[in-house]
Amino acid sequence: MVKLVAMYGKPKDPAHFDRYYRETHVPLAKRIPDVRRFTIHKVLGSPQEGDPPYYCLTEVYWDSLEAARKALASPDGQASYSDVPNYATGGVTFVFTEVEEIPLG
Amino acid sequence: MVKLVAMYGKPKDPAHFDRYYRETHVPLAKRIPDVRRFTIHKVLGSPQEGDPPYYCLTEVYWDSLEAARKALASPDGQASYSDVPNYATGGVTFVFTEVEEIPLG
Repeated sequence: MVKLVAMYGKPKDPAHFDRYYRETHVPLAKRIPDVRRFTIHKVLGSPQEGDPPYYCLTEVYWDSLEAARKALASPDGQASYSDVPNYATGGVTFVFTEVEEIPLG
Repeated sequence: MVKLVAMYGKPKDPAHFDRYYRETHVPLAKRIPDVRRFTIHKVLGSPQEGDPPYYCLTEVYWDSLEAARKALASPDGQASYSDVPNYATGGVTFVFTEVEEIPLG
């Protein structure tokens, strides 16, 4: 499994970010092909000193990097990606990562 | 569910990072109390231009922020946290986040 992690810096207007993300961006993002899971992660703090550098993270999962890149290149993928500047006024960093479970116990 | 996300910058010696992380750090981290899930995420690239700012992410899950902070303050939590500079030669950013699923379909 591969995910696209979006790391959002603190927006100029957090209330606008929250509302716009849920009301406008999520419906666009849900149209992207072959998405397997979609999560939002509000940043609660950090064990490090100072303010955390991110406001929230979001993660979108596909079966493979090829599927992720193909999905983002599709019209619905491009529409969703092009919508990001409408709310991400604190900047955003995107990375593709592979997901590997570490067995516990 | 709450997770601690560690975002690692590119280490000076990636082969040392990979080996040390798996052979030394993972066994220490697995002793931290009440961990529910533990994942490693190698960064594969980015849809943005330029090199991704992170080499890999790791995620450790607990039931709550209170459980996470308590676990990290324990002797095994402190031992694991103190081990980070031994391999994270490219720097590391930690954030606690809450995990919220967005229903698909």
